[in-house]
Amino acid sequence: MTRPLYVGLDLGGTNIKGAVTTAEAQSLADETVPTLAQAGPEAIMSQMDDLARRLVTQAGAEWRDVAAVGMGVAAWLDYDAGLILQAANLAGWVDIPLREQMSQRLGKPVVVENDANAAAWGEYVAGAGRGAHFMALLTLGTGIGGGIIVHDRLLRGHSDTAGELGHTMIRDDGPECVCGNRGCLEAFASAPATVQRFIEAVRGGADSALAEKVRAGEAVTTEDIYQQAMAGDTLCRQTLQETARFLGIGVHNIIMAVNPQRIVLAGGMIAAGDLIMETVKAVVAERTLPYAARYTEIGRGQLGEIAGAIGAAGCAAREYPPAIR
Amino acid sequence: MTRPLYVGLDLGGTNIKGAVTTAEAQSLADETVPTLAQAGPEAIMSQMDDLARRLVTQAGAEWRDVAAVGMGVAAWLDYDAGLILQAANLAGWVDIPLREQMSQRLGKPVVVENDANAAAWGEYVAGAGRGAHFMALLTLGTGIGGGIIVHDRLLRGHSDTAGELGHTMIRDDGPECVCGNRGCLEAFASAPATVQRFIEAVRGGADSALAEKVRAGEAVTTEDIYQQAMAGDTLCRQTLQETARFLGIGVHNIIMAVNPQRIVLAGGMIAAGDLIMETVKAVVAERTLPYAARYTEIGRGQLGEIAGAIGAAGCAAREYPPAIR
Repeated sequence: MTRPLYVGLDLGGTNIKGAVTTAEAQSLADETVPTLAQAGPEAIMSQMDDLARRLVTQAGAEWRDVAAVGMGVAAWLDYDAGLILQAANLAGWVDIPLREQMSQRLGKPVVVENDANAAAWGEYVAGAGRGAHFMALLTLGTGIGGGIIVHDRLLRGHSDTAGELGHTMIRDDGPECVCGNRGCLEAFASAPATVQRFIEAVRGGADSALAEKVRAGEAVTTEDIYQQAMAGDTLCRQTLQETARFLGIGVHNIIMAVNPQRIVLAGGMIAAGDLIMETVKAVVAERTLPYAARYTEIGRGQLGEIAGAIGAAGCAAREYPPAIR
Repeated sequence: MTRPLYVGLDLGGTNIKGAVTTAEAQSLADETVPTLAQAGPEAIMSQMDDLARRLVTQAGAEWRDVAAVGMGVAAWLDYDAGLILQAANLAGWVDIPLREQMSQRLGKPVVVENDANAAAWGEYVAGAGRGAHFMALLTLGTGIGGGIIVHDRLLRGHSDTAGELGHTMIRDDGPECVCGNRGCLEAFASAPATVQRFIEAVRGGADSALAEKVRAGEAVTTEDIYQQAMAGDTLCRQTLQETARFLGIGVHNIIMAVNPQRIVLAGGMIAAGDLIMETVKAVVAERTLPYAARYTEIGRGQLGEIAGAIGAAGCAAREYPPAIR
């Protein structure tokens, strides 16, 4: 086995994902555990400590083989200080010195990064972004996360909040967003926004194979909508295409602002099939200036749900490379 | 005089602006001449050649003191090749090897840059962006240009089209833009878009001190609208505030995507007074996540109309610095 190894942890409100990788971002083991989100920072840090050590054993390695640990967190953070300022989906995570506390627990150097930035770095070093000097990632799920790589560096910005592409506005009077603003890309094209638009269409009288479920007050997911769209349901198909048109505007805006070589879309709705990707590409083909769009490749993430953990390990490898640790 | 010197030329559809600067971007002389836009590339290159040499004389220097010449052009270009792919406001400027041809005329190394990128670089090295590692510029005029600096470098992107912030979309079904798309920031907030909205409001029955001028079919400019707004005309004031609200959305989107330390607004409508700036800042204060907006300073350009020429000279100084020329 090529040593040193790196551990990456991706902390979200629902799950903690972990991976052990080589310095070249090859994954040797990965695991996902449910986050004890209500138990507070101490309990979650203990979970992450256990997961990190278990993964190294699973990889057939020893803890002393680990050079550094990277963590992706769905949070606003101060990168240089390794401080979590606020985590939207984790109760009590305000001003938590995560880097220092985890470094003490683990006995290793720790790097803390925003989760979508970590996922972007993962795809950049080991997935769909390999070889591109300029790349942007959009992760589609409960929220819409973003990460941007320019000149082969993560674009973190002046105060570590760059790449929040889900909270760029695509309409001033659009629906309310969890961030407090209106008209954000996330408020139009996240999984909950997609479900909400579908439910409103059904309530407005549109027919669908899922209409009865909606009227009965049962939960409908984007997976349900995707399945029915594939089975020929017109409203489900239209709903997803509308989501994709909003995403297409977001992608257009990324192209005009950043001009990446690759734009990587990730998340369940993207992994499910071609419907959304094709509409996104069609929007860009129609809307974006050819000089700007011509050299932009739009594709799917290749690392799936483990992108953030692999990217977090990659961030650790970048900051603590084998040669100089 | 500190030698070597650098010449910067800013080629637009209406004017060519030129400046001679030191390696530290201090301007020693500048001049503006009307572009012979219809006369074709050869005549314009001859104009630029004359202007460059005249400026050096005006600066009390000799041509041999010039280390390199930078050019900002309102065009799509291939930076590495120094090639103008297409210039929207200059007839016949398609696939023009500007760097090579001007270098032969001038007998100096030449650097070619997009005009808004050059203006951003100018403000970064010598104006409102000094000291910031992350900066974005919006130039408001007939169009809306943009330039982004990250990690102290111009963000040119994969194929030299980054920073086209005027063509990011703030509404999918907005007015048509000169670029062929709809709903671009430029289509809402450029000078012509502002005048157009004003005219439509008057035609729709709104009252204004300029209403008679509009009904008589006379030309109305943003200067007219600004003057009347300052004199208390409600419609003129509302029109400019609406422009500023659209700009505020553009600025919000820049903050969320790039998280610059400074956002610099430039152009006649900005220079005229506080009205637009104050509304832009109010939109950001209301709309943008505090963690992202807190460290962003929004201010005016300091170099005025000569920013692009000074920035072009600065690009030349960056590529051909005194020590290694």
